Amino acid sequence: MLEVLDLDLKTGKEEYQEAISRLREKLRDLQHAVRDCGVPVVVLFEGWNAAGKGDAINALVRPLDPRGFKVFTTQAPTLEEQFHPFLWRFSTRLPGKGELVFWDRSWYRQMLEERVDGRLDRSGALAAGGEIREFERQLSDDGVVVIKFWLHISRKEQERRLASMQSDRFERWRWTQPDWKKERGYKKYLQAAEEMLALTSTVNAPWKLVEAHNRRYRRVKVFEHLTETLASRLSRQGHGRKTIGRPMQAVEDIDEEIRSQGLQVEVDSKPSVLDQSDLSKRLDRGDYEKRLSGLQQRLRDLEFECYGRRVASVVVYEGWDAAGKGGNIKRLTQELDPRGYEVVPINAPTAEEKNHHYLWRFWRQLPKAGHMTIFDRSWYGRVLVERVEGFASEEEWSRAYQEINEFERHLTVEGVVCVKFWLHLSPEEQLRRFRARERTPHKRFKLTSEDWRNRVRWNDYRRAVTEMIERTSTPYAPWTVVEAEDKLWARVKTLSTLVTTLERRLGV
Amino acid sequence: MLEVLDLDLKTGKEEYQEAISRLREKLRDLQHAVRDCGVPVVVLFEGWNAAGKGDAINALVRPLDPRGFKVFTTQAPTLEEQFHPFLWRFSTRLPGKGELVFWDRSWYRQMLEERVDGRLDRSGALAAGGEIREFERQLSDDGVVVIKFWLHISRKEQERRLASMQSDRFERWRWTQPDWKKERGYKKYLQAAEEMLALTSTVNAPWKLVEAHNRRYRRVKVFEHLTETLASRLSRQGHGRKTIGRPMQAVEDIDEEIRSQGLQVEVDSKPSVLDQSDLSKRLDRGDYEKRLSGLQQRLRDLEFECYGRRVASVVVYEGWDAAGKGGNIKRLTQELDPRGYEVVPINAPTAEEKNHHYLWRFWRQLPKAGHMTIFDRSWYGRVLVERVEGFASEEEWSRAYQEINEFERHLTVEGVVCVKFWLHLSPEEQLRRFRARERTPHKRFKLTSEDWRNRVRWNDYRRAVTEMIERTSTPYAPWTVVEAEDKLWARVKTLSTLVTTLERRLGV
Repeated sequence: MLEVLDLDLKTGKEEYQEAISRLREKLRDLQHAVRDCGVPVVVLFEGWNAAGKGDAINALVRPLDPRGFKVFTTQAPTLEEQFHPFLWRFSTRLPGKGELVFWDRSWYRQMLEERVDGRLDRSGALAAGGEIREFERQLSDDGVVVIKFWLHISRKEQERRLASMQSDRFERWRWTQPDWKKERGYKKYLQAAEEMLALTSTVNAPWKLVEAHNRRYRRVKVFEHLTETLASRLSRQGHGRKTIGRPMQAVEDIDEEIRSQGLQVEVDSKPSVLDQSDLSKRLDRGDYEKRLSGLQQRLRDLEFECYGRRVASVVVYEGWDAAGKGGNIKRLTQELDPRGYEVVPINAPTAEEKNHHYLWRFWRQLPKAGHMTIFDRSWYGRVLVERVEGFASEEEWSRAYQEINEFERHLTVEGVVCVKFWLHLSPEEQLRRFRARERTPHKRFKLTSEDWRNRVRWNDYRRAVTEMIERTSTPYAPWTVVEAEDKLWARVKTLSTLVTTLERRLGV
Repeated sequence: MLEVLDLDLKTGKEEYQEAISRLREKLRDLQHAVRDCGVPVVVLFEGWNAAGKGDAINALVRPLDPRGFKVFTTQAPTLEEQFHPFLWRFSTRLPGKGELVFWDRSWYRQMLEERVDGRLDRSGALAAGGEIREFERQLSDDGVVVIKFWLHISRKEQERRLASMQSDRFERWRWTQPDWKKERGYKKYLQAAEEMLALTSTVNAPWKLVEAHNRRYRRVKVFEHLTETLASRLSRQGHGRKTIGRPMQAVEDIDEEIRSQGLQVEVDSKPSVLDQSDLSKRLDRGDYEKRLSGLQQRLRDLEFECYGRRVASVVVYEGWDAAGKGGNIKRLTQELDPRGYEVVPINAPTAEEKNHHYLWRFWRQLPKAGHMTIFDRSWYGRVLVERVEGFASEEEWSRAYQEINEFERHLTVEGVVCVKFWLHLSPEEQLRRFRARERTPHKRFKLTSEDWRNRVRWNDYRRAVTEMIERTSTPYAPWTVVEAEDKLWARVKTLSTLVTTLERRLGV
């Protein structure tokens, strides 16, 4: 079936710009809807090496909230994976309700490669295809949306791309000898691919073939198929066209007494390290956009450099409610390769987590060598919310300063880069933002009595933050107080701080 | 300090028998108390190769409820472990409240070995010692009991043991060339050990040195230290001497109406595959003990054989309430090397588990090659309790038969042995056991209104069990209905079924 694809298809620049910005908007709305409806989504990419799978995933996740998706790559199985049944590494990484999981290569990889190198004969391929159909049917029966892309390029195009990657400093690491060899067997691979596509195109999880020569055309097609599939699935689930993009979270009735207390908050006069930050710092949009895009590109380069040199990093975001953590993280990650980082939102601990040492759940989320983990709130909860709200005893939170310093020292001694941001704003600016949320219908759900209650305790939090920064800002893991009165300034500052830290670490 | 140990210390046979059975009893009681008080416990063993660390752990876990402890071994780090900070693999495996974790080698291994081979100099050792002290202090501050044993033997004794292991079919696999080489450096190792012990013996986590020449002496000393440490810790926590061994679980007030309905249960006359089992099967205690111990030894041999040949197995226990699953599992595992198996009790799913496909949590618990996982209840909950109680929709539980068959076929095709037991008894015998529990003060907590409620639904469960066995007994993963009217018979039957299945699989 692949021979029928017209690989000359192209999308013009202007047409692309128009289409992609519309599709991005649509996908962003659909992510909200997917979350509201609790639909798990699996999107997988197979196809030729150098066909643009990574690029497509990069493009897709750009508009998404990084707290709602994960990206996995399927490489040759590790020893641990070889020691488990074949489907283990995929089954243990299924999306939960409302989550998206993207796979760069997937459970098809092994079938395809073994078929090419002859370890799998025709009947072996039939059996493998049958198992995969069962696996996908089980997912689909359970409500998981399974979307499969095959990215197709010609032999000539592939050769051209592989050669150019070889000479690119940031791409070179992706190409090892075995890959090159494999490409010589284009025809064999083509046969195996055709067989696989035929065996595993099912009603519930059909393959979408994508002509992948022209980048713009390829991206638009992938976007269109994903958005259409999600929209049709959600509308079947009764999530109508009109509601898409309007978050369905219930708007909470605000406790009026708490709110009126919140309106009267005044900062106490005790001196704090926070007073040293100049909240008048601002950037105009022109400067912002220029600097942002330069820094994002630079961070992307550094991400690859870290990957190649196996340097892991941990980025901690803490800050006042409405200080703009979410938007800031989004800009930080926007140009990154999603296979290299993960955003971990930290909420109240589960029962199992409460049953262990409070650092246990963070240990489990640490990045492995070459990767980056961004914590949206972190282990500092112990000396912030848990202290202020009394969830931890005084004995517990007082000893946490030392525990955290030891923890971070262990990480940094072991080579992990540790960057920590406190997003700081004035109570007046926070109030402006709260009120803006109250006025904006589709943002109103973001504001709860909880936020007002925290605001009432501004001075308690201020004391806790001050002590936290004083006691846990170490030479190996210093705090950066980010003036967040102006969101544009704050985004550029976090980015440039991270860039500088990584440059220093890498010596580049 | 090691030179002061008197390695000639011995315990006589009779003295040992008396001591060990008293200590086993005590440790069993202490495990209950540890659970009731929610105390996490870490027990680690370091010492010479062939000093008897494995033997000591084996002896310790024998009296324990296998659902309350885990055993880990520290080998050279895997690639995944190398890609994380040093303490990662230990920090992610800390015991939860009320759990015991045993380590055969631990976070001391690397320090010791790098010191011997010269990668760590004196100041490096000081730094490593400091980090370890911090780690253990963090645990201890959080209420974890940390118990550390150093098992000591002389150079001559070690050489003797290594030579004899080399010639033992079941021990040989443990000895690889590098180990042999390392032993030649006894003196260097001795110096490193002395340094390490001095650096890391602290108030909260002191080392216990054990003269390990005489097996009986060694075991008794280890038992005594563990039980004394736990008892003293629990008594400090206000868990007085008297209450140890008396479970503190609240005895539930039984719903009298449900109970009286439960008293009147009559089995309906619909034919069932369960009717084919002859519940009059019995074993007298003499026969039982002879057969039990033979089978346990055989299973232990097979466990090693499976380990060496990397055969994984999964054992599923399902059965009526009070059919004796817990006691049966205990006998099955009693002689096994705890490093080779794990018992996983399945309770109601957590919120995170409910958020995923119902098989997801079982995927995450699968054994790796060479290991055995015993599920105390399992994925069959979907077609038993979830069906009967309506926790799963009819659509969900009806398609589960196929899903389970596919799941188990995948496991077995991938080489995992799959053995499934239904422990069957008559409603009359169940009633006798319920009543016996009511009469026995320290067993009363085991009986709840829930049990009576399930009993009232006997016929619904009977229908569900019948359908389950009919639809999921496959050539590759057959059900064995175990007549459990007599517990002794049932224990021998599960053991012999497992033994036979493994023998067939291994061709031995």
